[in-house]
Amino acid sequence: MNEKLEFAKKVVYESGELIKQQMKESLTVDTKQNKHDFVTNVDKSTEIYIVKQIKDKYENQDFITEEKSVSYLGNSQVWVLDPIDGTTNFIYQKQNFAVSLAYYEDGKPVFGIVYDVTRDEMFVGIDGEGSYLNDQKLPNLDQDTDLEDAIVSSDLPTLRLYDEALEKKMMVHRYVGAAALDTCNIASGRSHVYIARRLKVWDIGAANIILNEVGGKSLIDGDETLQLVTTSVVYMAASNERILNELVKYYKGK
Amino acid sequence: MNEKLEFAKKVVYESGELIKQQMKESLTVDTKQNKHDFVTNVDKSTEIYIVKQIKDKYENQDFITEEKSVSYLGNSQVWVLDPIDGTTNFIYQKQNFAVSLAYYEDGKPVFGIVYDVTRDEMFVGIDGEGSYLNDQKLPNLDQDTDLEDAIVSSDLPTLRLYDEALEKKMMVHRYVGAAALDTCNIASGRSHVYIARRLKVWDIGAANIILNEVGGKSLIDGDETLQLVTTSVVYMAASNERILNELVKYYKGK
Repeated sequence: MNEKLEFAKKVVYESGELIKQQMKESLTVDTKQNKHDFVTNVDKSTEIYIVKQIKDKYENQDFITEEKSVSYLGNSQVWVLDPIDGTTNFIYQKQNFAVSLAYYEDGKPVFGIVYDVTRDEMFVGIDGEGSYLNDQKLPNLDQDTDLEDAIVSSDLPTLRLYDEALEKKMMVHRYVGAAALDTCNIASGRSHVYIARRLKVWDIGAANIILNEVGGKSLIDGDETLQLVTTSVVYMAASNERILNELVKYYKGK
Repeated sequence: MNEKLEFAKKVVYESGELIKQQMKESLTVDTKQNKHDFVTNVDKSTEIYIVKQIKDKYENQDFITEEKSVSYLGNSQVWVLDPIDGTTNFIYQKQNFAVSLAYYEDGKPVFGIVYDVTRDEMFVGIDGEGSYLNDQKLPNLDQDTDLEDAIVSSDLPTLRLYDEALEKKMMVHRYVGAAALDTCNIASGRSHVYIARRLKVWDIGAANIILNEVGGKSLIDGDETLQLVTTSVVYMAASNERILNELVKYYKGK
Protein backbone atom coordinates (compact mmCIF):
# COMPACT_ATOMS: atom_id res chain seq x y z
CA MET A 1 0.00 0.00 0.00
CA ASN A 2 2.92 2.28 0.77
CA GLU A 3 3.97 2.04 -2.85
CA LYS A 4 0.51 3.10 -4.05
CA LEU A 5 0.52 6.06 -1.65
CA GLU A 6 3.98 7.20 -2.71
CA PHE A 7 2.93 6.96 -6.33
CA ALA A 8 -0.22 8.97 -5.65
CA LYS A 9 1.74 11.69 -3.81
CA LYS A 10 4.12 11.95 -6.76
CA VAL A 11 1.26 12.26 -9.26
CA VAL A 12 -0.45 14.94 -7.15
CA TYR A 13 2.79 16.95 -6.84
CA GLU A 14 3.26 16.72 -10.60
CA SER A 15 -0.32 17.86 -11.19
CA GLY A 16 0.40 20.86 -8.96
CA GLU A 17 3.36 21.79 -11.13
CA LEU A 18 1.16 21.56 -14.22
CA ILE A 19 -1.46 23.77 -12.57
CA LYS A 20 1.16 26.40 -11.70
CA GLN A 21 2.37 26.40 -15.31
CA GLN A 22 -1.16 26.82 -16.62
CA MET A 23 -1.82 29.66 -14.16
CA LYS A 24 0.63 31.73 -16.20
CA GLU A 25 -1.54 31.25 -19.30
CA SER A 26 -5.06 32.49 -19.90
CA LEU A 27 -7.90 30.61 -18.28
CA THR A 28 -11.03 29.28 -20.01
CA VAL A 29 -13.97 29.50 -17.64
CA ASP A 30 -17.29 27.71 -18.24
CA THR A 31 -20.26 27.22 -15.98
CA LYS A 32 -22.04 24.01 -15.06
CA GLN A 33 -25.27 23.75 -13.08
CA ASN A 34 -25.68 27.48 -12.49
CA LYS A 35 -23.97 30.74 -13.44
CA HIS A 36 -21.66 30.58 -10.43
CA ASP A 37 -20.81 26.86 -10.70
CA PHE A 38 -17.51 27.33 -12.50
CA VAL A 39 -15.21 24.92 -14.27
CA THR A 40 -11.99 25.81 -16.07
CA ASN A 41 -9.78 24.15 -18.64
CA VAL A 42 -7.34 23.53 -15.76
CA ASP A 43 -9.88 21.53 -13.71
CA LYS A 44 -10.42 19.32 -16.74
CA SER A 45 -6.80 18.87 -17.81
CA THR A 46 -5.70 18.16 -14.23
CA GLU A 47 -8.32 15.45 -13.85
CA ILE A 48 -7.36 13.87 -17.16
CA TYR A 49 -3.69 13.94 -16.20
CA ILE A 50 -4.15 12.29 -12.79
CA VAL A 51 -6.58 9.64 -14.04
CA LYS A 52 -4.25 8.71 -16.91
CA GLN A 53 -1.23 8.33 -14.62
CA ILE A 54 -3.15 5.99 -12.32
CA LYS A 55 -4.68 3.96 -15.16
CA ASP A 56 -1.29 3.58 -16.84
CA LYS A 57 0.23 2.27 -13.62
CA TYR A 58 -2.50 0.03 -12.16
CA GLU A 59 -5.14 -2.22 -13.67
CA ASN A 60 -8.85 -2.30 -12.79
CA GLN A 61 -8.90 1.03 -11.00
CA ASP A 62 -12.21 2.80 -10.58
CA PHE A 63 -12.81 6.55 -10.29
CA ILE A 64 -15.32 8.99 -8.83
CA THR A 65 -14.31 12.39 -10.14
CA GLU A 66 -15.78 15.86 -10.17
CA GLU A 67 -15.35 16.52 -13.87
CA LYS A 68 -16.61 13.07 -14.88
CA SER A 69 -13.97 12.37 -17.51
CA VAL A 70 -14.39 8.69 -16.47
CA SER A 71 -17.45 6.73 -15.36
CA TYR A 72 -17.73 5.15 -11.94
CA LEU A 73 -18.21 1.40 -12.35
CA GLY A 74 -18.58 0.31 -8.74
CA ASN A 75 -15.37 -1.74 -8.49
CA SER A 76 -13.45 -2.35 -5.27
CA GLN A 77 -10.41 -0.10 -5.84
CA VAL A 78 -11.74 3.44 -6.07
CA TRP A 79 -9.97 6.76 -6.48
CA VAL A 80 -11.99 9.81 -5.44
CA LEU A 81 -10.72 12.91 -7.19
CA ASP A 82 -11.43 16.61 -7.20
CA PRO A 83 -8.76 18.02 -9.50
CA ILE A 84 -9.32 21.57 -8.21
CA ASP A 85 -11.32 21.94 -5.04
CA GLY A 86 -12.17 25.64 -4.74
CA THR A 87 -12.51 26.54 -8.41
CA THR A 88 -13.99 29.97 -7.62
CA ASN A 89 -10.95 30.75 -5.48
CA PHE A 90 -8.70 29.40 -8.22
CA ILE A 91 -10.24 31.77 -10.77
CA TYR A 92 -10.44 34.94 -8.66
CA GLN A 93 -7.76 34.53 -6.00
CA LYS A 94 -5.20 32.29 -7.69
CA GLN A 95 -4.84 30.67 -4.27
CA ASN A 96 -6.92 28.86 -1.63
CA PHE A 97 -7.58 25.83 -3.84
CA ALA A 98 -6.34 22.24 -3.66
CA VAL A 99 -5.96 18.99 -5.51
CA SER A 100 -7.88 16.33 -3.58
CA LEU A 101 -7.23 12.62 -4.19
CA ALA A 102 -8.35 9.74 -1.99
CA TYR A 103 -8.08 6.00 -2.35
CA TYR A 104 -10.74 3.61 -1.03
CA GLU A 105 -10.84 -0.20 -1.08
CA ASP A 106 -14.12 -2.06 -0.67
CA GLY A 107 -15.78 1.19 0.38
CA LYS A 108 -13.25 1.79 3.17
CA PRO A 109 -10.75 4.67 3.30
CA VAL A 110 -7.10 3.79 2.68
CA PHE A 111 -5.43 7.17 2.25
CA GLY A 112 -6.25 10.77 1.33
CA ILE A 113 -4.09 13.53 -0.14
CA VAL A 114 -4.94 17.24 -0.20
CA TYR A 115 -2.42 19.47 -1.90
CA ASP A 116 -2.62 23.26 -1.45
CA VAL A 117 -0.72 24.07 -4.62
CA THR A 118 0.20 27.74 -4.11
CA ARG A 119 1.21 27.26 -0.46
CA ASP A 120 3.01 24.02 -1.36
CA GLU A 121 1.36 22.26 1.57
CA MET A 122 0.55 18.58 1.17
CA PHE A 123 -1.74 16.98 3.72
CA VAL A 124 -1.76 13.16 3.79
CA GLY A 125 -3.96 10.94 5.95
CA ILE A 126 -3.38 7.19 6.13
CA ASP A 127 -6.07 4.98 7.61
CA GLY A 128 -4.99 3.75 11.03
CA GLU A 129 -1.61 5.46 10.85
CA GLY A 130 -2.16 9.20 11.25
CA SER A 131 -1.90 12.36 9.18
CA TYR A 132 0.97 14.42 7.88
CA LEU A 133 1.58 17.95 6.65
CA ASN A 134 4.56 18.03 4.30
CA ASP A 135 5.71 14.71 5.79
CA GLN A 136 5.61 16.04 9.37
CA LYS A 137 3.22 14.05 11.54
CA LEU A 138 0.29 16.14 12.76
CA PRO A 139 -0.44 15.90 16.48
CA ASN A 140 -3.78 14.60 17.69
CA LEU A 141 -6.38 17.30 18.15
CA ASP A 142 -7.28 18.56 21.60
CA GLN A 143 -10.40 16.65 22.64
CA ASP A 144 -11.36 19.25 25.25
CA THR A 145 -11.62 22.36 23.08
CA ASP A 146 -15.08 23.86 23.40
CA LEU A 147 -17.28 25.64 20.86
CA GLU A 148 -16.64 28.86 22.83
CA ASP A 149 -12.99 28.71 21.77
CA ALA A 150 -13.67 27.56 18.23
CA ILE A 151 -12.92 29.16 14.89
CA VAL A 152 -15.95 28.22 12.79
CA SER A 153 -15.63 28.00 9.04
CA SER A 154 -18.83 28.10 7.03
CA ASP A 155 -20.70 30.22 4.55
CA LEU A 156 -23.77 32.25 5.28
CA PRO A 157 -26.49 30.17 3.61
CA THR A 158 -25.26 27.12 5.52
CA LEU A 159 -25.20 28.93 8.84
CA ARG A 160 -28.81 29.96 8.29
CA LEU A 161 -29.59 26.28 8.93
CA TYR A 162 -28.41 26.80 12.50
CA ASP A 163 -29.96 28.68 15.37
CA GLU A 164 -28.63 32.23 15.56
CA ALA A 165 -27.45 31.50 19.11
CA LEU A 166 -24.57 29.54 17.57
CA GLU A 167 -22.96 32.80 16.39
CA LYS A 168 -22.85 34.13 19.94
CA LYS A 169 -21.52 30.87 21.31
CA MET A 170 -18.56 30.33 18.95
CA MET A 171 -15.32 32.34 19.12
CA VAL A 172 -14.94 33.70 15.59
CA HIS A 173 -15.98 33.04 12.04
CA ARG A 174 -13.74 32.47 9.02
CA TYR A 175 -14.30 30.94 5.58
CA VAL A 176 -11.85 29.76 2.95
CA GLY A 177 -14.47 28.32 0.61
CA ALA A 178 -12.67 25.13 -0.42
CA ALA A 179 -14.03 22.08 1.41
CA ALA A 180 -10.78 20.13 1.33
CA LEU A 181 -8.81 23.06 2.80
CA ASP A 182 -11.48 24.10 5.27
CA THR A 183 -11.41 20.51 6.58
CA CYS A 184 -7.61 20.20 6.57
CA ASN A 185 -7.45 23.49 8.49
CA ILE A 186 -9.18 21.68 11.35
CA ALA A 187 -6.70 18.80 11.12
CA SER A 188 -3.80 21.26 11.42
CA GLY A 189 -5.34 23.28 14.27
CA ARG A 190 -5.96 26.41 12.19
CA SER A 191 -9.69 26.12 12.66
CA HIS A 192 -12.08 24.01 14.73
CA VAL A 193 -15.31 23.61 12.82
CA TYR A 194 -16.32 23.37 9.17
CA ILE A 195 -19.94 23.11 8.13
CA ALA A 196 -21.14 22.86 4.55
CA ARG A 197 -24.12 21.71 2.58
CA ARG A 198 -24.40 20.50 -1.00
CA LEU A 199 -20.98 18.86 -0.83
CA LYS A 200 -19.99 15.95 -3.01
CA VAL A 201 -17.83 13.00 -2.02
CA TRP A 202 -14.88 14.30 -4.08
CA ASP A 203 -14.84 17.53 -2.05
CA ILE A 204 -14.14 15.75 1.23
CA GLY A 205 -13.16 12.18 0.27
CA ALA A 206 -9.50 12.85 1.07
CA ALA A 207 -9.79 15.54 3.74
CA ASN A 208 -12.19 13.48 5.84
CA ILE A 209 -9.55 10.74 6.19
CA ILE A 210 -6.96 13.36 7.17
CA LEU A 211 -9.32 14.79 9.81
CA ASN A 212 -10.31 11.42 11.23
CA GLU A 213 -6.70 10.36 11.61
CA VAL A 214 -5.92 13.19 14.05
CA GLY A 215 -9.00 12.52 16.17
CA GLY A 216 -11.36 14.91 14.42
CA LYS A 217 -15.03 13.99 14.17
CA SER A 218 -17.55 14.49 11.42
CA LEU A 219 -21.09 13.80 10.39
CA ILE A 220 -22.03 13.31 6.75
CA ASP A 221 -25.78 13.55 6.38
CA GLY A 222 -25.86 12.59 10.04
CA ASP A 223 -23.72 9.47 9.48
CA GLU A 224 -20.17 9.01 10.77
CA THR A 225 -18.89 7.32 7.64
CA LEU A 226 -18.54 8.73 4.16
CA GLN A 227 -20.35 6.74 1.50
CA LEU A 228 -19.03 6.59 -2.03
CA VAL A 229 -22.09 8.14 -3.58
CA THR A 230 -22.45 11.05 -5.97
CA THR A 231 -25.38 12.79 -4.30
CA SER A 232 -25.00 15.98 -2.27
CA VAL A 233 -24.36 15.76 1.44
CA VAL A 234 -24.50 18.01 4.50
CA TYR A 235 -21.15 17.90 6.25
CA MET A 236 -20.32 18.90 9.82
CA ALA A 237 -16.68 18.53 10.76
CA ALA A 238 -15.12 19.43 14.09
CA SER A 239 -11.95 19.05 16.11
CA ASN A 240 -13.61 16.73 18.56
CA GLU A 241 -16.79 15.01 19.63
CA ARG A 242 -17.60 17.64 22.22
CA ILE A 243 -17.83 20.43 19.65
CA LEU A 244 -19.64 18.22 17.16
CA ASN A 245 -22.27 17.27 19.74
CA GLU A 246 -22.81 20.94 20.57
CA LEU A 247 -23.14 21.85 16.91
CA VAL A 248 -25.83 19.27 16.37
CA LYS A 249 -27.93 20.95 19.08
CA TYR A 250 -28.00 24.19 17.08
CA TYR A 251 -28.96 22.53 13.82
CA LYS A 252 -32.44 23.45 12.61
CA GLY A 253 -32.41 21.22 9.51
CA LYS A 254 -32.20 21.58 5.75
CA MET B 1 8.19 61.71 0.03
CA ASN B 2 9.60 58.86 -2.01
CA GLU B 3 12.44 58.56 0.48
CA LYS B 4 10.01 58.31 3.40
CA LEU B 5 8.04 55.61 1.57
CA GLU B 6 11.13 53.61 0.71
CA PHE B 7 12.26 53.84 4.31
CA ALA B 8 8.85 52.68 5.56
CA LYS B 9 8.83 49.72 3.15
CA LYS B 10 12.27 48.67 4.39
CA VAL B 11 11.20 48.89 8.03
CA VAL B 12 8.04 46.86 7.35
CA TYR B 13 10.02 44.16 5.53
CA GLU B 14 12.45 43.99 8.43
CA SER B 15 9.59 43.73 10.90
CA GLY B 16 8.26 40.80 8.85
CA GLU B 17 11.61 39.05 9.18
CA LEU B 18 11.52 39.57 12.94
CA ILE B 19 7.98 38.19 13.10
CA LYS B 20 9.02 35.06 11.17
CA GLN B 21 11.91 34.53 13.56
CA GLN B 22 9.64 34.88 16.57
CA MET B 23 7.12 32.45 15.05
CA LYS B 24 9.71 29.72 15.61
CA GLU B 25 9.69 30.49 19.34
CA SER B 26 6.85 30.09 21.81
CA LEU B 27 4.13 32.70 21.82
CA THR B 28 2.84 34.62 24.85
CA VAL B 29 -0.86 35.29 24.42
CA ASP B 30 -2.81 37.77 26.56
CA THR B 31 -6.31 39.13 26.20
CA LYS B 32 -7.48 42.74 26.12
CA GLN B 33 -11.10 43.90 26.15
CA ASN B 34 -12.64 40.42 26.13
CA LYS B 35 -11.53 36.80 26.26
CA HIS B 36 -11.20 36.61 22.47
CA ASP B 37 -9.48 39.98 21.98
CA PHE B 38 -5.96 38.60 21.80
CA VAL B 39 -2.57 40.26 21.91
CA THR B 40 0.79 38.49 21.77
CA ASN B 41 4.35 39.39 22.65
CA VAL B 42 4.96 39.61 18.89
CA ASP B 43 2.28 42.30 18.36
CA LYS B 44 3.97 44.36 21.06
CA SER B 45 7.59 43.85 20.00
CA THR B 46 6.75 44.52 16.34
CA GLU B 47 5.08 47.80 17.22
CA ILE B 48 8.00 48.87 19.40
CA TYR B 49 10.46 47.99 16.65
CA ILE B 50 8.65 49.93 13.91
CA VAL B 51 7.98 53.00 16.05
CA LYS B 52 11.61 53.13 17.17
CA GLN B 53 12.96 52.93 13.61
CA ILE B 54 10.73 55.82 12.51
CA LYS B 55 11.49 57.95 15.59
CA ASP B 56 15.22 57.40 15.19
CA LYS B 57 15.06 58.53 11.57
CA TYR B 58 12.60 61.45 11.62
CA GLU B 59 11.81 64.17 14.15
CA ASN B 60 8.33 65.19 15.36
CA GLN B 61 6.54 62.10 14.10
CA ASP B 62 3.21 61.21 15.62
CA PHE B 63 1.66 57.76 15.97
CA ILE B 64 -1.73 56.09 16.24
CA THR B 65 -1.03 52.46 17.05
CA GLU B 66 -3.04 49.46 18.10
CA GLU B 67 -0.88 48.46 21.04
CA LYS B 68 -0.55 52.04 22.30
CA SER B 69 3.16 51.90 23.08
CA VAL B 70 3.17 55.62 22.17
CA SER B 71 0.57 58.35 22.72
CA TYR B 72 -1.11 60.19 19.87
CA LEU B 73 -0.39 63.90 20.21
CA GLY B 74 -2.36 65.30 17.28
CA ASN B 75 0.63 66.53 15.23
CA SER B 76 0.63 66.86 11.45
CA GLN B 77 2.86 63.91 10.46
CA VAL B 78 1.04 60.79 11.63
CA TRP B 79 1.89 57.11 11.25
CA VAL B 80 -1.03 54.73 11.66
CA LEU B 81 0.19 51.29 12.68
CA ASP B 82 -1.26 47.88 13.33
CA PRO B 83 1.80 45.72 13.97
CA ILE B 84 -0.19 42.51 13.42
CA ASP B 85 -3.60 42.84 11.83
CA GLY B 86 -5.34 39.50 12.29
CA THR B 87 -3.88 38.44 15.64
CA THR B 88 -6.33 35.53 16.00
CA ASN B 89 -5.18 34.20 12.63
CA PHE B 90 -1.56 34.78 13.65
CA ILE B 91 -2.04 32.66 16.78
CA TYR B 92 -4.09 29.80 15.34
CA GLN B 93 -3.23 29.74 11.65
CA LYS B 94 0.29 31.16 11.55
CA GLN B 95 -0.84 32.89 8.36
CA ASN B 96 -3.49 35.33 7.10
CA PHE B 97 -2.13 38.26 9.12
CA ALA B 98 -0.36 41.44 8.05
CA VAL B 99 1.72 44.38 9.18
CA SER B 100 -0.24 47.55 8.37
CA LEU B 101 1.50 50.94 8.29
CA ALA B 102 0.13 54.16 6.82
CA TYR B 103 1.44 57.69 6.72
CA TYR B 104 -0.84 60.73 6.83
CA GLU B 105 0.01 64.43 6.67
CA ASP B 106 -2.42 67.06 7.93
CA GLY B 107 -5.10 64.38 8.15
CA LYS B 108 -4.68 63.39 4.49
CA PRO B 109 -3.41 60.02 3.27
CA VAL B 110 0.10 59.95 1.79
CA PHE B 111 0.86 56.24 1.51
CA GLY B 112 -0.18 52.89 2.97
CA ILE B 113 1.70 49.59 3.26
CA VAL B 114 0.14 46.20 4.03
CA TYR B 115 2.57 43.31 4.28
CA ASP B 116 1.26 39.73 4.27
CA VAL B 117 4.29 38.26 5.99
CA THR B 118 3.89 34.53 5.34
CA ARG B 119 2.88 35.01 1.69
CA ASP B 120 5.60 37.64 1.26
CA GLU B 121 3.12 39.94 -0.45
CA MET B 122 3.56 43.69 0.05
CA PHE B 123 0.72 45.97 -1.00
CA VAL B 124 1.59 49.66 -1.32
CA GLY B 125 -0.81 52.49 -2.14
CA ILE B 126 0.47 56.00 -2.86
CA ASP B 127 -1.97 58.90 -2.84
CA GLY B 128 -2.60 60.09 -6.39
CA GLU B 129 -0.18 57.59 -7.91
CA GLY B 130 -1.73 54.12 -7.69
CA SER B 131 -1.19 50.85 -5.86
CA TYR B 132 1.34 48.08 -6.14
CA LEU B 133 1.63 44.42 -5.18
CA ASN B 134 5.28 43.47 -4.76
CA ASP B 135 6.24 46.50 -6.87
CA GLN B 136 3.94 45.51 -9.75
CA LYS B 137 1.31 48.14 -10.45
CA LEU B 138 -2.20 46.92 -9.78
CA PRO B 139 -4.73 47.59 -12.56
CA ASN B 140 -7.77 49.75 -11.88
CA LEU B 141 -10.78 47.79 -10.71
CA ASP B 142 -13.65 47.03 -13.06
CA GLN B 143 -16.26 49.71 -12.42
CA ASP B 144 -19.04 47.59 -13.92
CA THR B 145 -18.87 44.50 -11.75
CA ASP B 146 -22.20 43.91 -10.07
CA LEU B 147 -23.09 42.52 -6.63
CA GLU B 148 -24.37 39.39 -8.40
CA ASP B 149 -20.82 38.60 -9.45
CA ALA B 150 -19.21 39.62 -6.19
CA ILE B 151 -17.22 37.66 -3.64
CA VAL B 152 -18.34 39.15 -0.33
CA SER B 153 -16.04 39.03 2.65
CA SER B 154 -17.60 39.54 6.05
CA ASP B 155 -18.32 37.79 9.30
CA LEU B 156 -21.71 36.64 10.45
CA PRO B 157 -22.51 39.17 13.16
CA THR B 158 -21.79 41.96 10.67
CA LEU B 159 -23.94 40.44 7.96
CA ARG B 160 -26.83 40.27 10.41
CA LEU B 161 -26.90 44.07 10.02
CA TYR B 162 -27.97 43.53 6.41
CA ASP B 163 -31.19 42.28 4.95
CA GLU B 164 -31.07 38.52 4.34
CA ALA B 165 -31.81 39.20 0.67
CA LEU B 166 -28.19 40.27 0.30
CA GLU B 167 -27.05 36.66 0.65
CA LYS B 168 -29.16 35.60 -2.28
CA LYS B 169 -28.01 38.52 -4.38
CA MET B 170 -24.24 38.16 -4.01
CA MET B 171 -22.17 35.45 -5.72
CA VAL B 172 -20.33 33.79 -2.85
CA HIS B 173 -19.14 34.43 0.67
CA ARG B 174 -15.56 34.24 1.99
CA TYR B 175 -13.83 35.61 5.07
CA VAL B 176 -10.15 35.97 5.91
CA GLY B 177 -10.69 37.82 9.18
CA ALA B 178 -7.91 40.40 8.88
CA ALA B 179 -9.26 43.81 7.82
CA ALA B 180 -6.10 44.91 6.02
CA LEU B 181 -5.98 41.71 3.96
CA ASP B 182 -9.73 41.52 3.35
CA THR B 183 -9.49 45.07 1.96
CA CYS B 184 -6.33 44.46 -0.08
CA ASN B 185 -8.02 41.37 -1.54
CA ILE B 186 -10.50 43.73 -3.17
CA ALA B 187 -7.67 45.91 -4.49
CA SER B 188 -6.05 42.85 -6.11
CA GLY B 189 -9.31 41.48 -7.56
CA ARG B 190 -9.46 38.44 -5.24
CA SER B 191 -12.68 39.67 -3.69
CA HIS B 192 -15.21 42.42 -4.33
CA VAL B 193 -16.72 43.44 -1.02
CA TYR B 194 -15.55 43.67 2.57
CA ILE B 195 -17.87 44.72 5.35
CA ALA B 196 -16.89 45.00 9.00
CA ARG B 197 -17.99 46.72 12.15
CA ARG B 198 -16.03 47.70 15.24
CA LEU B 199 -12.95 48.45 13.18
CA LYS B 200 -10.29 50.87 14.28
CA VAL B 201 -8.33 53.28 12.10
CA TRP B 202 -5.16 51.17 12.35
CA ASP B 203 -6.99 48.17 10.85
CA ILE B 204 -7.72 49.96 7.59
CA GLY B 205 -5.57 53.12 7.61
CA ALA B 206 -3.18 51.64 5.06
CA ALA B 207 -5.49 49.29 3.15
CA ASN B 208 -8.05 52.00 2.50
CA ILE B 209 -5.44 54.05 0.61
CA ILE B 210 -4.48 50.96 -1.41
CA LEU B 211 -8.13 50.33 -2.28
CA ASN B 212 -8.89 53.95 -3.21
CA GLU B 213 -5.89 54.13 -5.51
CA VAL B 214 -7.25 51.36 -7.78
CA GLY B 215 -10.70 52.89 -7.98
CA GLY B 216 -12.29 51.03 -5.08
CA LYS B 217 -14.90 52.78 -3.00
CA SER B 218 -15.61 52.72 0.70
CA LEU B 219 -17.77 54.18 3.40
CA ILE B 220 -16.49 54.62 6.93
CA ASP B 221 -19.41 55.26 9.24
CA GLY B 222 -21.18 56.47 6.13
CA ASP B 223 -18.39 58.92 5.24
CA GLU B 224 -16.07 58.61 2.25
CA THR B 225 -12.96 59.73 4.09
CA LEU B 226 -11.17 58.03 6.95
CA GLN B 227 -10.75 60.23 10.00
CA LEU B 228 -7.76 59.78 12.28
CA VAL B 229 -9.81 58.92 15.33
CA THR B 230 -9.54 56.02 17.73
CA THR B 231 -13.23 55.18 18.00
CA SER B 232 -14.77 52.12 16.31
CA VAL B 233 -16.16 52.44 12.81
CA VAL B 234 -18.44 50.52 10.47
CA TYR B 235 -16.61 49.92 7.20
CA MET B 236 -18.08 49.02 3.82
CA ALA B 237 -15.51 48.55 1.08
CA ALA B 238 -16.24 47.54 -2.50
CA SER B 239 -14.63 47.28 -5.91
CA ASN B 240 -16.72 50.11 -7.26
CA GLU B 241 -19.46 52.61 -6.59
CA ARG B 242 -22.13 50.44 -8.17
CA ILE B 243 -21.63 47.61 -5.69
CA LEU B 244 -21.25 50.02 -2.78
CA ASN B 245 -24.52 51.76 -3.63
CA GLU B 246 -26.28 48.40 -3.79
CA LEU B 247 -24.84 47.32 -0.45
CA VAL B 248 -26.12 50.45 1.25
CA LYS B 249 -29.65 49.52 0.18
CA TYR B 250 -29.44 46.26 2.14
CA TYR B 251 -28.07 47.89 5.28
CA LYS B 252 -30.47 47.75 8.21
CA GLY B 253 -28.24 49.69 10.66
CA LYS B 254 -26.14 49.06 13.74
